[in-house]
Amino acid sequence: MSGARKHVQVEGEFSMRRGGVLIEPTIAYETWGTLNPARDNAVLIFTGLSPSAHASSCGADTAPGWWEEMIGPDRAIDTERFFVICINSLGSCFGSTGPASIDPVSGEIYRLSFPVVTLEDVAAGGARLLDHLGIDRLRAIVGPSMGGMTALAFEIMFPGRSQGLLVLSSGARALPFSIAMRSLQREMIRRDPDWCNGEYTNDRMPIMGMRLARKLGMITYRSALEWRDRFGRERVAAEHAPDDSFGIDFEIESYLEAHAVKFTGQFDPNCYLYLSRASDLFDVAEHGGSVAAGLSRVQSQKVRVIGVTTDFLFPIEQQRELAQLLDTPGRAADMVELDSIQGHDSFLVDMDRFRPVVAEFFA
Amino acid sequence: MSGARKHVQVEGEFSMRRGGVLIEPTIAYETWGTLNPARDNAVLIFTGLSPSAHASSCGADTAPGWWEEMIGPDRAIDTERFFVICINSLGSCFGSTGPASIDPVSGEIYRLSFPVVTLEDVAAGGARLLDHLGIDRLRAIVGPSMGGMTALAFEIMFPGRSQGLLVLSSGARALPFSIAMRSLQREMIRRDPDWCNGEYTNDRMPIMGMRLARKLGMITYRSALEWRDRFGRERVAAEHAPDDSFGIDFEIESYLEAHAVKFTGQFDPNCYLYLSRASDLFDVAEHGGSVAAGLSRVQSQKVRVIGVTTDFLFPIEQQRELAQLLDTPGRAADMVELDSIQGHDSFLVDMDRFRPVVAEFFA
Repeated sequence: MSGARKHVQVEGEFSMRRGGVLIEPTIAYETWGTLNPARDNAVLIFTGLSPSAHASSCGADTAPGWWEEMIGPDRAIDTERFFVICINSLGSCFGSTGPASIDPVSGEIYRLSFPVVTLEDVAAGGARLLDHLGIDRLRAIVGPSMGGMTALAFEIMFPGRSQGLLVLSSGARALPFSIAMRSLQREMIRRDPDWCNGEYTNDRMPIMGMRLARKLGMITYRSALEWRDRFGRERVAAEHAPDDSFGIDFEIESYLEAHAVKFTGQFDPNCYLYLSRASDLFDVAEHGGSVAAGLSRVQSQKVRVIGVTTDFLFPIEQQRELAQLLDTPGRAADMVELDSIQGHDSFLVDMDRFRPVVAEFFA
Repeated sequence: MSGARKHVQVEGEFSMRRGGVLIEPTIAYETWGTLNPARDNAVLIFTGLSPSAHASSCGADTAPGWWEEMIGPDRAIDTERFFVICINSLGSCFGSTGPASIDPVSGEIYRLSFPVVTLEDVAAGGARLLDHLGIDRLRAIVGPSMGGMTALAFEIMFPGRSQGLLVLSSGARALPFSIAMRSLQREMIRRDPDWCNGEYTNDRMPIMGMRLARKLGMITYRSALEWRDRFGRERVAAEHAPDDSFGIDFEIESYLEAHAVKFTGQFDPNCYLYLSRASDLFDVAEHGGSVAAGLSRVQSQKVRVIGVTTDFLFPIEQQRELAQLLDTPGRAADMVELDSIQGHDSFLVDMDRFRPVVAEFFA
């Protein structure tokens, strides 16, 4: 049953939380492992802002996934035991309907006519997918980063639909520092003259804005400590051209440039704007008046929150807040603090620390 | 002797550290208090990247200075006791010669033909000013932020020329995280089509690039903790226009916008690029092969290093490194760690914490 990207077309209208309706939107997903006859061994993964549903390789798509070392036979999320589903967020550009998709009503690309996307909409898309797959109750719902906020939204909106909840490097809502960082990334894209208020063409994309945004994104995803150890004040080998007096001097600048160039062209700028804003808008407190009230609606019986001390996009205090408020009578809730040095991105790269604590959750 | 902005024209040629020569450059400065007959009560202040020499008000210029509460009669830097001098950095645009000045050879604005500026050049400008004022030995040299690095450069290049050294929220060299932040600010300006490779006109400045750069600057100058307490997730009163779907939602965005708008037009973009890069290029280790070797050349007998725990542009570890390496036999060196919540900018705004520890240094 393992295979490459699949799609489900949601039946009828899909009402968006902040207004607007999508007609039969598509939700792209991938699965690994086999759904058991009782249909109760499924694990649903929501992603961070930029990944696709390709979390791990499979027979039909052998390219390594974004969480390759985490998902597979005998891995931390064991596909011999679980039917693992990863969903491409609504509003993204890797198969699910988003601002880069064709509006079936107009026949044109949505662009900025796409309704505001919230993480509650992304979570609702996940619920529709489960309906389609005939899965009433999940073994666990898993979400790193933005996916962690989506997982919380799912828990709150569909109480009782999962037995377990695993949130990694996330939080109950965006804090102003993170909002500032993301807002500035969005502005860099919007101020690129080639953005054209979202009406860019494939021939002329807001490449410079995307590159700048990605560089700032990378700065927020890693940590000062990692870079000090890794790059120090190393200079690049080549002096920059005499007519480029503000070109690249340091290895850290070269590293950011390479990441930025790689990212540009992979991700649709409007989709980036929509999902980035969705991260800022999310607030558990909208569900009940306070973070505590919102989290009181979570019904998973087994909860683990994993955080990293060097993460400054979702600081460790935010995971502590989650763990504390979710640690209520009758529930097994715990918190794992990891001292990875790669900051927010640690869940993607520091597998030696993350694998065992994810495996332990599923043991 | 207190008065508004003064200028000194350096005699002859001024050789720049990385090559190039300035012909009789101007150095702008302000002074407060009176030089005593022994000419040994002078205190020299180097500034951060963006301020002018107007550190405090005076009879001729009653506008508040950037360190108004710190400098004056009976204030922490007491102008009844000291002859206080603040210098506008070479390369800046507030009276000292920089990329926005007229090249006396060509008669045109220097722009990118201005030689690379280093903090050693800024320090050498300070020494020339002291020569002009007939001051052989300073009571103390003071520098916050970039000015702290300039003060270190001065100490190393002109050993014995000061009795005391007060470094605030600075470091022996830029770390890769700070380099990344500043490099990205420079790139935002350079990628603005109106920058025109430095050839912008007064009618058409790279305003958008400057605004974006200032926003990122502000993010690095403050702290996540301060913003959480101050702004939380407060929304702005007015909904943004329907045709501006990515406009300002949150108070933190509005705050950054206001600061960015205010800064633009005050600071020349090319000067900003030059001084920003000077901060990245500075490295005490260039003077002797290591930071320790460089700092061993410091001769001030009384040293204080002040740092802030929430500063992530010049993290507290950098001040600890300075204090530790400067604490040698025969010298009174100490370190003050403040838990201000305003991050790097605390030295400008958290006067209740900074005033007493600066006053104590001068007591």
